[in-house]
Amino acid sequence: MEHSRNNNGVANDGGEFQSPALERLVRSLSRLPGLGRKSATRLALHLVSESAAAEELVESTAQACEQVCHCGRCGAITEQDPCRICTSERRDPKLLCIVATPVDILPFEKAGFYRGRYFVLGGLLSPLDGVRAEDLPFGRLVERVRLDGVDEVIIALDSSVEGETTALYMQRLLQELPRDSDRDALHMTRLATGIPVGGALAYIDEVTLQRAFQFRRDF
Amino acid sequence: MEHSRNNNGVANDGGEFQSPALERLVRSLSRLPGLGRKSATRLALHLVSESAAAEELVESTAQACEQVCHCGRCGAITEQDPCRICTSERRDPKLLCIVATPVDILPFEKAGFYRGRYFVLGGLLSPLDGVRAEDLPFGRLVERVRLDGVDEVIIALDSSVEGETTALYMQRLLQELPRDSDRDALHMTRLATGIPVGGALAYIDEVTLQRAFQFRRDF
Repeated sequence: MEHSRNNNGVANDGGEFQSPALERLVRSLSRLPGLGRKSATRLALHLVSESAAAEELVESTAQACEQVCHCGRCGAITEQDPCRICTSERRDPKLLCIVATPVDILPFEKAGFYRGRYFVLGGLLSPLDGVRAEDLPFGRLVERVRLDGVDEVIIALDSSVEGETTALYMQRLLQELPRDSDRDALHMTRLATGIPVGGALAYIDEVTLQRAFQFRRDF
Repeated sequence: MEHSRNNNGVANDGGEFQSPALERLVRSLSRLPGLGRKSATRLALHLVSESAAAEELVESTAQACEQVCHCGRCGAITEQDPCRICTSERRDPKLLCIVATPVDILPFEKAGFYRGRYFVLGGLLSPLDGVRAEDLPFGRLVERVRLDGVDEVIIALDSSVEGETTALYMQRLLQELPRDSDRDALHMTRLATGIPVGGALAYIDEVTLQRAFQFRRDF
């Protein structure tokens, strides 16, 4: 076709869609984590064609931004400060589980076996990313351990370099805390590393296998 | 640890987060196309922690829903009806490209070589999905071809079973149109099938290769 061979310079109006409002929506969606231009376009087209979905998204985003806050004691996501876990009479204040982010609380609560409380660091020490000890709430952690008379701190961080560094830093920090003479030393533990339940031995990575071997238990 | 062995029944409060508003946001995000529970959680947490991103999303969604409409003539996404392509003096009304969805217009406009107009079907014939000829705007297409005095219709549909069925249906429909005696018959074309420019022959699928061979051109 002759039309397809010559570029006759019909402008495409700058933006790709003939609608600045739709382009703006695509841009604001594609700035969200994990969304590229293609997924953002797909979402934007869905939102402008399904007004119920768009209204629900607008309302739920506005409502969540208004109501969601972080618990001043533990850092969990909540709508009441302090959160229900921190104020529950049924949770043992002497048992404190330290996690990196509020999302890390979810698997514990879903499983339902844990009867202690949490402390959210909100990040991990990472000199390369410029996260130093001053940037994390270690002061509030020490305060919490002291005030609540915590007996056991369970460190539940990722087993990455940053997670290990942060765990070691906290171990040093918390072991140096003065304790009342009538109480045992603060007990510090961490989650076990090993083969996941139901995990196929043939496909396990070497580091996990080595750790599982190193920490093998009596039968 | 003894705590980890007994399930002492601490309830997890129904929702996973301690925030119904956040749970609602996660649910409304995970109902959008291409987003699962995990990506929706990630997005929701980003939105509640970055209020600027949330405000921008709320505003741009509301604005897009208010301003975006479909061109009554061609079905393109636009903010003015009829759209700029349909009203442009520089676009040839005798050249009509038929696409399945408004997004299919984008690659043409981006490339900038096409100087005709478009017609968006909004779907493809698919008896299995219950899309029949009555569900697609073939009446408006025939009207448009007649009113604009279209000389060439370029069919640019996916080469799926539905695309082929729809293309054949339109070919029959448009060829039966009465034409003025002083004009040539309506010219109907479709996009070429073949090896993509820059495509590696070794990795091309069999059907494409067969089509490229079948429609080989003189050198």
